[in-house]
This record gives sequence, C-alpha cells and structure tokens, in this order.
Amino acid sequence: MTTWGESHGGGVGVVIDGCPPRIPLTESDIQPDLDRRRPGQSRIVTPRKEMDEVRILSGTFDGLTLGTPISMMVQNKDHRPEAYSEMATKFRPSHADYTYHAKYGIRNWQGGGRTSARETIGRVAAGAVAKKILKEFFGVEVLACVETVQDIHASVDPEEFTAEAVESNIVRCPDAARAEMMIERIEEVRAAGDSIGGIILGVAREVPVGWGAPVFDRLEADLAKAMMSLPATKGFEIGSGFGGTRLTGLQHNDPIRSEDGRVFTTSNHSGGVVGGISNGETIFFRVAFKPVATVMHSQKTIDVNLENTELKGRGRHDPCVLPRAVPMVEAMTAMVLADHALRHHAQNNLPPRPE
Amino acid sequence: MTTWGESHGGGVGVVIDGCPPRIPLTESDIQPDLDRRRPGQSRIVTPRKEMDEVRILSGTFDGLTLGTPISMMVQNKDHRPEAYSEMATKFRPSHADYTYHAKYGIRNWQGGGRTSARETIGRVAAGAVAKKILKEFFGVEVLACVETVQDIHASVDPEEFTAEAVESNIVRCPDAARAEMMIERIEEVRAAGDSIGGIILGVAREVPVGWGAPVFDRLEADLAKAMMSLPATKGFEIGSGFGGTRLTGLQHNDPIRSEDGRVFTTSNHSGGVVGGISNGETIFFRVAFKPVATVMHSQKTIDVNLENTELKGRGRHDPCVLPRAVPMVEAMTAMVLADHALRHHAQNNLPPRPE
Amino acid sequence: MTTWGESHGGGVGVVIDGCPPRIPLTESDIQPDLDRRRPGQSRIVTPRKEMDEVRILSGTFDGLTLGTPISMMVQNKDHRPEAYSEMATKFRPSHADYTYHAKYGIRNWQGGGRTSARETIGRVAAGAVAKKILKEFFGVEVLACVETVQDIHASVDPEEFTAEAVESNIVRCPDAARAEMMIERIEEVRAAGDSIGGIILGVAREVPVGWGAPVFDRLEADLAKAMMSLPATKGFEIGSGFGGTRLTGLQHNDPIRSEDGRVFTTSNHSGGVVGGISNGETIFFRVAFKPVATVMHSQKTIDVNLENTELKGRGRHDPCVLPRAVPMVEAMTAMVLADHALRHHAQNNLPPRPE
Amino acid sequence: MTTWGESHGGGVGVVIDGCPPRIPLTESDIQPDLDRRRPGQSRIVTPRKEMDEVRILSGTFDGLTLGTPISMMVQNKDHRPEAYSEMATKFRPSHADYTYHAKYGIRNWQGGGRTSARETIGRVAAGAVAKKILKEFFGVEVLACVETVQDIHASVDPEEFTAEAVESNIVRCPDAARAEMMIERIEEVRAAGDSIGGIILGVAREVPVGWGAPVFDRLEADLAKAMMSLPATKGFEIGSGFGGTRLTGLQHNDPIRSEDGRVFTTSNHSGGVVGGISNGETIFFRVAFKPVATVMHSQKTIDVNLENTELKGRGRHDPCVLPRAVPMVEAMTAMVLADHALRHHAQNNLPPRPE
Repeated sequence: MTTWGESHGGGVGVVIDGCPPRIPLTESDIQPDLDRRRPGQSRIVTPRKEMDEVRILSGTFDGLTLGTPISMMVQNKDHRPEAYSEMATKFRPSHADYTYHAKYGIRNWQGGGRTSARETIGRVAAGAVAKKILKEFFGVEVLACVETVQDIHASVDPEEFTAEAVESNIVRCPDAARAEMMIERIEEVRAAGDSIGGIILGVAREVPVGWGAPVFDRLEADLAKAMMSLPATKGFEIGSGFGGTRLTGLQHNDPIRSEDGRVFTTSNHSGGVVGGISNGETIFFRVAFKPVATVMHSQKTIDVNLENTELKGRGRHDPCVLPRAVPMVEAMTAMVLADHALRHHAQNNLPPRPE
Repeated sequence: MTTWGESHGGGVGVVIDGCPPRIPLTESDIQPDLDRRRPGQSRIVTPRKEMDEVRILSGTFDGLTLGTPISMMVQNKDHRPEAYSEMATKFRPSHADYTYHAKYGIRNWQGGGRTSARETIGRVAAGAVAKKILKEFFGVEVLACVETVQDIHASVDPEEFTAEAVESNIVRCPDAARAEMMIERIEEVRAAGDSIGGIILGVAREVPVGWGAPVFDRLEADLAKAMMSLPATKGFEIGSGFGGTRLTGLQHNDPIRSEDGRVFTTSNHSGGVVGGISNGETIFFRVAFKPVATVMHSQKTIDVNLENTELKGRGRHDPCVLPRAVPMVEAMTAMVLADHALRHHAQNNLPPRPE
Repeated sequence: MTTWGESHGGGVGVVIDGCPPRIPLTESDIQPDLDRRRPGQSRIVTPRKEMDEVRILSGTFDGLTLGTPISMMVQNKDHRPEAYSEMATKFRPSHADYTYHAKYGIRNWQGGGRTSARETIGRVAAGAVAKKILKEFFGVEVLACVETVQDIHASVDPEEFTAEAVESNIVRCPDAARAEMMIERIEEVRAAGDSIGGIILGVAREVPVGWGAPVFDRLEADLAKAMMSLPATKGFEIGSGFGGTRLTGLQHNDPIRSEDGRVFTTSNHSGGVVGGISNGETIFFRVAFKPVATVMHSQKTIDVNLENTELKGRGRHDPCVLPRAVPMVEAMTAMVLADHALRHHAQNNLPPRPE
Repeated sequence: MTTWGESHGGGVGVVIDGCPPRIPLTESDIQPDLDRRRPGQSRIVTPRKEMDEVRILSGTFDGLTLGTPISMMVQNKDHRPEAYSEMATKFRPSHADYTYHAKYGIRNWQGGGRTSARETIGRVAAGAVAKKILKEFFGVEVLACVETVQDIHASVDPEEFTAEAVESNIVRCPDAARAEMMIERIEEVRAAGDSIGGIILGVAREVPVGWGAPVFDRLEADLAKAMMSLPATKGFEIGSGFGGTRLTGLQHNDPIRSEDGRVFTTSNHSGGVVGGISNGETIFFRVAFKPVATVMHSQKTIDVNLENTELKGRGRHDPCVLPRAVPMVEAMTAMVLADHALRHHAQNNLPPRPE
C-alpha cells in the first residue's frame, strides 16, 4: 500500500498491490468507512464539509478485482487557504510544521499539507479492501471503539462488543452511559477552545492460530508500527499491556486447554498473540491518542526566521480526534492481518508433496 | 540486518548490510554489550554459563569496516537438551511452543529454539555497530535503564541519567535506593519459583532535528515496532504516552522557543518526535515487559496430541528479564536511528546544485 | 515508484516516494517525455489519438517538490471497447492474455488491460523526475536511441550521439541515412499487416565513479531488470555483451590510465560498470525488443474454453514499438541511476567525523 | 537471501529466510552443488585447493527445516595473502579494485575480497535449497550447461539435455564432441596465460502456467537481474533474444493449441514467459560471461596514488569461468523461481471462499 496526497492539492489516494483477484469490489464497499472518517459527520467533530467520495481508478473489472494494482482517489474540495495564512510563517506547537520545515526546507503550510489527517483517507479506503479479504477468505472480523475519553473510562469487553453498539452513538463507544458523558465532555472542551485525547480499543476476532512471524515481523510489532503511524498516537499495548507488568508469571500466564479438539486459553493476558504468532484467541490492543494540537488559544512558538512569537489556532477543527480515528484503527489492523494472512499462506500452505 | 540461530544448534548470528565504510570496528566494540546481555552475569539473572564470545567473520579489514556485509557469530555451548525433554511433547503456557507448532508443524523444542531470547544476541551485536555509527558521525547517545520492576517505580530523569549510574548496580536502575528494592524483590520472586516484569525507559540524546518520515515509517512507529519485536514486550509509549491522554491540548502542547539561534521546546510531552520526525529534543519512550513465562510451578497446558495435561518449569531461568533487556532496548533503538539517519541523509543532504 | 492503471479504466498513474525536496517541478517537466511516448505522434506509430496530458496531484507546492510522495495521473480517453470484443473470449498469441487468465482467473480484456503499453505512461512520468534529479544534482545525462530495426543496423557512437540527433527523425535513430531506411521498412511492414522489432541503445554519461553495489544490486543487474520489465523486451547486454564472449581476457580488459588526476580507461568493453559499480566511463547497454505481437493476420490460438480457434488482429497498433520505446528506456535508466545515487550517498557521503 | 563473506576472512555464508517448514534438509543436499562450484575440481579450472565444506548452523531440526532462518557457512582455508601483495597498491584492470576503492575508500585486496567469486558459495548453497523446494512441491527441474566457449558453439536442445550429459565432461557441455574442443581451447588459453569467456544456457522445465508478475517483477526481469548479479556476466536473453529482433511478428508469435485439455504453443520464441508470467512451456535463457579479467601478462593500470603503472597477474586462476558458473546459474534460477512460486501461491491460491 502506498498513499499520497496533501490536505490541499489535487486530492488524496492510495495504491494497493498484491490484492487477490476475483473479489467483488466497488465504491460501495469503500464509501461507508470513509463516511465514518469524514469531517462534518456529527456535532462533536470538525464542521468542515468534505464529502470524500471515493473513485476506483484501476484494478477492477466488471466489479471484480483483477489482481493488479488498485488505485483509489478522493478529490480535494472546500479549499479555504486564506483561513491558514498565518501558518505560512509561524509553526504550530506540537504540530509537525517545524520538523517538516527543518527536514525538507519546504512545506505545504495549507491545512497541514502531508501531515494533515486527510492523508488517512487513503488508508481507510485500503483498509476497507483488507477487511473484505479477511472476511471473505478467513471469516475474520476487525473492529474498534472508543474506550476512554480523557478520564472517562467505559467498560468494554473485547470479546463481546458489536459494530452496531459502536455505531449507535456519535462518539463510537459501545457503553451507552459513558458515551453520553464523553459527548458532553467533548462539547465542553470545544466550547472552551481546548481539546482532549483518549484511548481506542482494537480487536480482531476469529483469527486462526499461526498468523505472524517469530522475530522482526511479530504480529504485535507490526500492529504497533501500524498504530503508531497514525497521526496523534503516543502509545500501544497488547493484551495485559503496561498493567500486566504488575502481575507475576503465575498470575499472568494463560493456561491452555483442549476440548473436543478445540484449543483455547482460559485467560487472555496475551491478547491473542504469543511469540509474535496468533494463538486463536481474540486479538485486542489499546492505542493512546494525545489531545489534538490545535487549540483556540494563543500559544508560544517561533516563526520561520526562528523569532519568538505567538500563534492562536483558527479554523474548524476536531476537539477530540477519537470518534473519527475508530475507522483508521480498524483499517490499519485489517491491513496488517491481511498481509500476514497472505504471507502465512505463502510459506505454510503449499501443495501437498507427492510421495 | 538479518539474524539467525536457535537456542541450541551451531550458534546464533547476524548479518548487517549497508554499514558505512572505514569505521574502526573489532570484536572489542561488540563484546561489552554482549556481556551486559549474557546469562550468568549476576545473581539475579539465570545462572546458565554462556560466555557468548563474538567473532566478526566478514566485512572488516585491518580493523576497519569495508562497506560490505558484516557477519558476526556467537557459537552455542553448554548444551543440556535433557533438561528440557518434557518440552518435546508439552507446550509451555504463554510461550510460543503451541503457536510455532500450529504454524510450522515442527519446532525446535530444545530451550525454545528460535523463540529463545538467545536470538537477541545477534541484535545486540548489530546494535553495537549502530551505536558506533550514531556516535562517530552524529554525536548521538543511546541509553536505556530499568525504571519499574513490578510495582517498584524509580524516579529517573530521561535528560540526566548516565550510563555509569545504569551500570552501577546489577538491576540496571540508576536510582540506587529503588535498585536495592528491585534486587530484593527479584530474589524473593526467584525463591518463590515465580517471575516478574516491569518497564524499561529508553532515550536518545542529541538527535538532530529532521530524522524520521511523515507517514508509514514515522520514527515513533519504527521504534514501536523495534521494541515490540523484542521477546516478552506488551506495550510501548513515547513522551506523554498513555498518561498524556488525560491532559488537554493546552496542557499537552510543547511551546517552541528560540534562543541565540537554538530552537527548543519548554516541555517535552512529545518525547522528541513530532509528526514522525525528530524535533531536536531528547527522545524518550517506555517499554512494558511481561513477567517471564517460565515459572517453577505446575501449570495447566496441553500436549502435542492436544490432550490436557500439566507442565512444571525446570532448568535455569531468569526470574526477571529486565536487567538483561536493557542492552536489547539500546540495540534496537540504535538500529532504528542509524537507519533513519542514513535515509535522511540520502534524501536531504545531496550535493549543492550548481547555479 | 508504484504505477497503476489499465489501458481502459479511469486512467493510469504513478506514485514516487523519496524524491529530494525543493526541486523545481511542474507538468511542463514531464509532458515532453510523455509526448515522445504517446500514440499518434508520427506516421510510423499507431494512429490512436491519446493526448496523455499529465497532472501532478500531490508532492509539490508552489512549483517545488515537497519531499513527500509525488502522485501523477493521466486520464484515459478514446475508449473503443467494441474494437476488441473478440478478445473477450480468445487469447492473442504471444500476448499475455492466456497467462493472465491462467494466473488470476480474470482479466481486463479491453485493450490489453494491465499488460497494455499504456502502463508505461507512469514510468515515463517518473523517469522525467529522475532525469531531473540526475541532471540538477549530479550533471548526469541519460539518453537512448534506436540502433537497429530488424536487420537495418545504424552506426552509433555511445559517447557522441546527441538528443537533437535522436529527435531529428521519427524513428529516433541518430544515423540519418539508416533512419530513412528504417522508416521505409516500418511502413512496408505495416502495409503488409505484419510487425518488426529491433535494438535500442541506452547510455548514461558523466556518471561519477562509485555508484552501484557489489553483489545482488549491481548496477548492471538493476539496469537489466529495469529493461526486461519493459513490455516486449527479450534481451539485455552491457558493454561488450554477447559479442565480448569471443574475445580473450587480454583483448577484453580495459587498461586504466591517469592524467592530471583524472582516471579513465583506454577502451570501454566494461560499458562503464565494473563489479557492479560505475567506473566513471560512459555507461552503455543494448535492449532487444521483439516484433509487436499484434499482426493483421489470422493466427492459431485457443479461446477461454480452451478450444482451438483462430484470431485476427484488429484496431490501431504499432507496427514497430521502438520509436516510442526510446523514452521508456531513458526513463527506466534514470530511475535506476537516481536510486543508486541516493543509496550511494546514504552509505558513503556522511558528515565528517569529528577528531 | 543474504550472503556475506570475502575471499579471505573467517568464511563465507548465507542466510535464507522464508523457507517452508518440514522439508528434509541436511548438508548432503547442499554439498554436491558446492563440489560442482569449487576450485580444483578438474584440470581446466583453478588448481587452488578449497574443499568448501558447508555447515548448516540454524533453521533445521532432526534433518527437517523449521521455517526459521537457515544459516549456512563455509570456512575459509588456504590463505596465501603473500601471493597477492602487489594488489594492495595496484588496481587490476577490469576487476572491481578501482571501483571499490573509489566507492568505499577501503577494500580487502586479498584475493579480491567481496568481489571474489568466493561470494557465490553462499548463493550456490541457497540455490540447492531452492531447487529442493521446486522439486518437492512443484516438480520443477532447473538445469544449466555450457553452450558456447569463445567461438566454439555446441548444439543443445533446451527441452532435451540431461543433468547426466552436463556432468559427463569437465566443461559441462552436453554436446560431447564440442565439449572436447572446448576443453582443448581452454587448455591452450591457459598455457598462453590468457583467458576466455562464453555463453551458458539455463532452463527450467515443468514450470506451471501463472508464475511471475505483470509489471516490475516480471519473471524475465527477475531472471535477468539474478544472472547479471553473477560475477563476469555481460548479457542476458530469454527465448528468441537478440536474434529474434530479425523476425517479423508473424514469424515470431507462438501459436497456442489445446489437446485433451492440455494447452501448449507450437513454437517457443517466448522462452516460456509471456508478459512476465510463465506460460507452461520450458523456460530457457542465455547468459554471456566475459573472459576472466586475470591474465598472466603485464597490463597497464594505475596504483592507489593514481600513478600510471603496470601489473602482471599471478596466482592460481581460472582461464575460463564457465564450467564452475553452471551451478551458479542453476542456483540463481532456482531462487527466482522459488520466490515467485511462493508469491504466486500467496496471492492466488487462497482457501475457497464460503458461499
């Protein structure tokens, strides 16, 4: 997968190589996840109007994948460069403005350029294809939800929560009571011109035993990289995570049992992955998102001449990125798993050798 | 970098490709880090006797790197396969025995085979080379220490702690008082036949602004993958991490200042990386290690025929992997940074274009 | 570089990652090479009307590269699927119809789909960017020309021929007299409903000594792969090539001389590359293109039910692919060299180490 | 696959990742091909005594592959660095001495260092594993032979020649009469202190239709790169190759026929690959090897101070590399095909989708 595009420019897109042929695929398979990602979808996200209509440019024929590269694109609209003109000369704190400037000596300062969350459109589109591969060939379900907003923590069972429950409210938390509190909190914070972060829970269910790799490309390593490549992420943990460091080995180990040929563990501190390889239990992990860096207050920073100055956020921004990040976490999870599924297949499911 | 080798077999090793030429490099540059990793180095680690003497097989000439692949190897010794014979038929809980068996249909059951922490010898050796590149060409220092053992939390300043302080005690925690408590706790746990985990703090100082990449290969993403590829890791966070999700944007943003041409931030919630690219501040992150899976108690598991059974740990094992994991964290950090240093250089430091 | 697109569909395009920032780049840098590649440019190529106007969708800002992925696209026009309807059920001999069908179980039979030479638009566009990098940073010139059409062999000196001479006639052969003969031959063959092939000579001048790699990614190996990835190629040779196998070592070796600090060889059987690494002499190589597979005669083949049948070529096709392949050879050469230039720089031109 | 090692140093070796598990593999599967490659095997190759005994260091257990990295090594013996001392300061013409020196600023001048054909030991060892995968899982046979030595051209049918015929004489040409002439010629050239080159024919039989890729990683492109990465190669052609450029499309196209469900072509100008993908016919190609650069005569060159000087070859060298290159061509062919076999399987042979 290769994504391209900036927040302001011709558009954003993605090219996917290596997709199996003959899978039914049209824009209607992709658009729903983009709609979950797009601005303006509810009162707690940025009110920018971007419809983000995807177009498949290559790689399908008569509604089926060809096995050749799939190119998808969303055109950019709603340009308002004037809203950001101060950004041409000042660096927003805790945004990538200064680091891009220092690295490349040039940056597209309009709406964040390549650093814009708009880049994730391509990933969500590609993730929809990966989800389809996982579901059609392997029966694997990938799902994510908001578990925590600032200090409001919902109680969510990785084994049980449903896509319907996630989509039943605009914050995408399956715990209805906490979801109400989260929405209220986000509205308060937006009113105060501030922003907040939180934690997303990601799961993959019915993953067969054996996907992954033993050393560098462990399944948890690839998931960690995928999540930490999303904008605004500061942490990743799988299974027992940081909390598990307080247990002893006896408490932490997952006993293995067998029943009618089915193997399972009676606890799941491992989070579905042992030694880099899936063990057949539900894979679950958590991703920490920092509060959005754009706030409607004046903040200390420097300009392109390295002079000290101040900058106040303007424009239409998300006070909390989590509701829109849920489909991004699902997309990246699906891509990691689909990649490992094909790799596992290549090395381990060869034709039977003749006697 | 490519590592190879199992816990029991001819040996373990690593091949490094792409190392710059003409860097002084002999076994004496590598051995110290291997000595910090090896078993038997202190009373709180496994008493197995493995000297782990490294030999450079290629890629150097007259004590200088050639620019060609560097191959390094440590021979295996101290075989005691009989100590593990029960493991031939039973899967250790929360070890990779069952997942390997299911994936490959075969496994080297002697001492864990490829899943053995012995695999990390190659990484530590390669990391020593990467450290050298970082130090000689860029003046970057990479360092790690134990910050937490189970619930004993040391107070360590990422900006300040020294290699000397880390090496001043056998648990590798620069907070001497807490180190004492940690050592005691590890000895208690070993006596009880149990095991514990904890948290390692990794830092990189004097990294110049501009290393990293904006999207998939963000610096924090590559660090996360590197750390989560180490055995027994369950979590990674950079800068403010999971705790930072409780702050608001105004609290979390790092104000940028300039003084005499030097740019810096007055706080470091970012952990030295913004938008995937280093910002010139100290890079720091934390890695969660679960308690070691091998405990000296009987545990529920299954055998290769998928029959329910029990298995009791035997042999000489670490009650806590953290002291020996410190050089592993340093090695992986150094390799990620050296790779990004060379990549940055390739894209951004080309010769000046003629007028 | 990643290309995408089929002959009939939304369009064709390319994404380039890793391009240095701050290079002037607009569509006007790309379009000239596309115009040399496009159908309908002269009376000896296919008369299909495709203007192939390129659009840069991302990766530039105010006419300068950003260092982020550059996405370029050409929309498809002039759809005439009805011209090819017989191809839906019959496989064209020596085209990839049958192999695609067997591999993927599906194919876009309209105009060849992914196998269409239309895919090379993305490569030519990317090559124009690579040429620019080579010229601006390193002063390297990449050039190709038609040396042979069927049995008409032009005499071309790799050191001397110019871009102007190449473009001075429609067959792109700098030997004007032979060019006339080639053009005549192509017109005869077209009139006969048949097709012919030939040999293209590619050169790179002023390549500094030291680009390349010693083992797997030898410069000549990467050039060979790049050329053999172009449609219709059947052979590659560098320097003395196949003819050189008749010489003895004494005849073949290139004596090395030095004059005022400048190193050179007094012959160039090596073709500018020794042991995988450029030696400072002109790099030159030859690429064999088979006769175009589409001919206006009935040929034996099978249909999708594996029944024997016949198929006669129809539509507007090139009787000889060579004139349009010249910019493709240049593009692939430029991309291989630009890649090695950046790689060489990453490993070997690091900042000076402090004392 | 990663190889490492120089002509003089600890040894040479290879690490193979991604090999399927549970394949029987011991040193006895590898050694025969190394014996065909090693010096001193006959009177027409270099008389250096190197037994090249391979040792498998990891990746197998009880004689079966584990699915983990396979590390293999051959120790270096027979050091005679004094034989080459003049090479420390002078560059051998048409060897990589000068290009290495210029690229890296350092080189292992003993016996050629990394440029030594000794590096190919690792490839031949890895190729033996790839051959095994191809044969056991897919019934594919890979074979090569000497077709031409200087101007002595044997008549060899790619479909028919056998491994036995190849090994029946020391020059590895299945045409016994021409083999005699070739051997004589090599002995004459050696007596004259000179060297010669020639052409090797490589084939792969019973390759199923569908292996390969449509664009950048075409099967013929990967074969070309693999062959051109071998030392001393100057050209590659597949099927009709350079000679095919003289045919017309009608003459060159391979008619497709079907008989009892079996699809085949009645000619094979394609060489078994169409559009980057195997078509089920025998794959055959030719590789041009230049005359060995080391000759026993004084030749013009420069020294490390760029002063003009002369250098005369010494030591024990091959007057003709072709007999020893046959197993190298087979090894590289097998690795390309095994890689594409696994890739094809990953994308195209997924489990059947449920209704």
